[in-house]
Amino acid sequence: MTHRLDATDPLAAYRDRFVGAETPLVYFDGNSLGRPLTAMGPRLSRFVEEEWGGRLIRGWDERWLELPQRIGDDLGRVVLGAAAGQVTIGDSTTVLLYKLMRAAVAARPGRTEIVLDRDNFPTDRYVAAGVAEECGLTLRWIDVDLTAGVTPELLADAVGERTALVVLSHVAYRSAWLADAPELTRIAHDAGALVLWDLCHSAGSVPVTLDEWGVDLAVGCTYKYLNGGPGSPAFCYVAERHLPELTQPIQGWLGSVDPFLMGPSYAPAPGIRRFQSGTPPILGMLAMQDMLALVKEAGIGAVRAKSVALTSYAVELGDELLAPAGVVLASPRDPARRGGHVTFTHPLMREVTAALWERDVVPDYRDPGGLRLGLSPLSTSYAEVERGMRLVREALAGLT
Amino acid sequence: MTHRLDATDPLAAYRDRFVGAETPLVYFDGNSLGRPLTAMGPRLSRFVEEEWGGRLIRGWDERWLELPQRIGDDLGRVVLGAAAGQVTIGDSTTVLLYKLMRAAVAARPGRTEIVLDRDNFPTDRYVAAGVAEECGLTLRWIDVDLTAGVTPELLADAVGERTALVVLSHVAYRSAWLADAPELTRIAHDAGALVLWDLCHSAGSVPVTLDEWGVDLAVGCTYKYLNGGPGSPAFCYVAERHLPELTQPIQGWLGSVDPFLMGPSYAPAPGIRRFQSGTPPILGMLAMQDMLALVKEAGIGAVRAKSVALTSYAVELGDELLAPAGVVLASPRDPARRGGHVTFTHPLMREVTAALWERDVVPDYRDPGGLRLGLSPLSTSYAEVERGMRLVREALAGLT
Repeated sequence: MTHRLDATDPLAAYRDRFVGAETPLVYFDGNSLGRPLTAMGPRLSRFVEEEWGGRLIRGWDERWLELPQRIGDDLGRVVLGAAAGQVTIGDSTTVLLYKLMRAAVAARPGRTEIVLDRDNFPTDRYVAAGVAEECGLTLRWIDVDLTAGVTPELLADAVGERTALVVLSHVAYRSAWLADAPELTRIAHDAGALVLWDLCHSAGSVPVTLDEWGVDLAVGCTYKYLNGGPGSPAFCYVAERHLPELTQPIQGWLGSVDPFLMGPSYAPAPGIRRFQSGTPPILGMLAMQDMLALVKEAGIGAVRAKSVALTSYAVELGDELLAPAGVVLASPRDPARRGGHVTFTHPLMREVTAALWERDVVPDYRDPGGLRLGLSPLSTSYAEVERGMRLVREALAGLT
Repeated sequence: MTHRLDATDPLAAYRDRFVGAETPLVYFDGNSLGRPLTAMGPRLSRFVEEEWGGRLIRGWDERWLELPQRIGDDLGRVVLGAAAGQVTIGDSTTVLLYKLMRAAVAARPGRTEIVLDRDNFPTDRYVAAGVAEECGLTLRWIDVDLTAGVTPELLADAVGERTALVVLSHVAYRSAWLADAPELTRIAHDAGALVLWDLCHSAGSVPVTLDEWGVDLAVGCTYKYLNGGPGSPAFCYVAERHLPELTQPIQGWLGSVDPFLMGPSYAPAPGIRRFQSGTPPILGMLAMQDMLALVKEAGIGAVRAKSVALTSYAVELGDELLAPAGVVLASPRDPARRGGHVTFTHPLMREVTAALWERDVVPDYRDPGGLRLGLSPLSTSYAEVERGMRLVREALAGLT
């Protein structure tokens, strides 16, 4: 029997486009690795036979060299609110964080601090620490409440004339706190700093309008809500006004002005391609294209509406089923401040997660004591949420 | 009718394992982008359905997190002559060059020069220039003959007590000059320098024995003779003796000692994994595994023997068919000093290349005036070489 909420969900039919949607598995980790689309297997086979196997090296001239920028433009249009020419695909989020942080601090000479919060994703913190050390800067840490994130007040207290760069996550990886990006960007700019947004946990589920917000720099991954597959390449955004002045340290031939001139010295390409270094990972860019088309078809506004409805339903079920067992909501209750996942804490959640995996219910565990439920809007049903939440209760009951 | 040389080629049957081998296309660019194996399409479909789609996020724990090191070990055993624990897969050649160069110069404090040759591949030269600039070092250039490469004499003249690092290509991308890697490594070491070998144009076609040669560092790509697909991830080798002391600047979570602890600060993993940064590109690692299995089955010695026979045949046909038209061999005539490709020069070769592409003969063009023929041993037949060389003569005749 169809769940009452699925029956009225205008996006319900999209679920059938994903591999495994028909199985009894409850998948609460689409915010970590999105499901493949059913279109993927055939697309990859076609690619191998026709494009790689058929065109061979000619594929680079005909299509692949421009693909990172072409997909970047699509991504900009469909989910990032970025005009063409500012987004490219490649490397990993970590490598792109490094490139953009190095570019940013070089563009703010004399300023000595990078501001970020202690709950930012580990790789962001580790890269920032490395960049700070090699460039002679210091990190200025913002302490945040684990169930929330960086507020305008916290950021205003942290930035000043010493701030070169502010590095923030749009959606916090544990709490799902949805930062007030335009306001935080304004505060960083008022202090004369650049701002670098990590969109890993928002791109594809929360509307982002980078141009409108006046963002300087952004990175994100494509294997979460953009379903690009395990380890698919990341994206970066550099606002057009910064492109002529910002350069990055990994000077590779494919970021140079004319790669096939193979000249004696490096000069960066004039546009966003200067943030590329090596040969673009074409195979890894195939899956995200189908997902982008799906998000475009559904509309990012409708995707966000379903995301809010799914997480609100999980919060409601948490109140009803889990709170009596001592489980605490560790995500914002206000949907306007919440991204696409919901975290519940309890001292036994590590064990609960293990027990659930045994039963084909797949959430994630994040210290301290957090059961994290990622509800990817186009591939998750309300029935799945309800069944999963009941099984969480059962697993917890079995352990107490 | 079977070509007389194909009839006696013990590796002839391998050609049927590649997509498109049955078509009339003459493919002389397997040293730039190897053909896909026919096994690839089905392998990718299976991966999407069963591994990515079926295991989802659990795939990381079950298999993917270790995959870069597992394939690295296979690569070490089958084609690099490297014991386990010293090779990993990830990023692009360019990004790995950056990481290893930064690691190397930090390990030789007080030394002020990076030595490399003017004919090294552009990305190697560009990365080295960037690393030198940011670390306050200078580049010391070796001038080489375009039809040859770095000899022991040239290197001995260039290195000294100021040399921190020597960066060399094992096979030169234009001339196919095959460097005397053990001797050049010894010369660099005698000067107290580290040596970084770029194996892009040799790995998979020329036997490499990194451990035996005492090499410190190496990188290479997997889309040429390892048939990993367009933009498949690169590999790096760091000798075990250096692993405890060498660190790289892109401090990402997946190179940290315990990624899922997500602790407050970065500490590098003890082994080769410290050279990883972001999430490993799993989809891009699938194709190279089948090719590695094929090379293992054939044996790298037999692969090299066929490679020498193919390039010698091309040289012989060049003497017969092209030399009378003023074409000059720009690769070593001695097969012991020649890698897996052959370059012929003539002032019209750019136009010849364009004309050949029109007729489904696909070589590469490299300035100045070089027609480069890459003869990937397991997918190229002698009949293909003969037909291709005759068509080169025709194309040239049509232009003069």
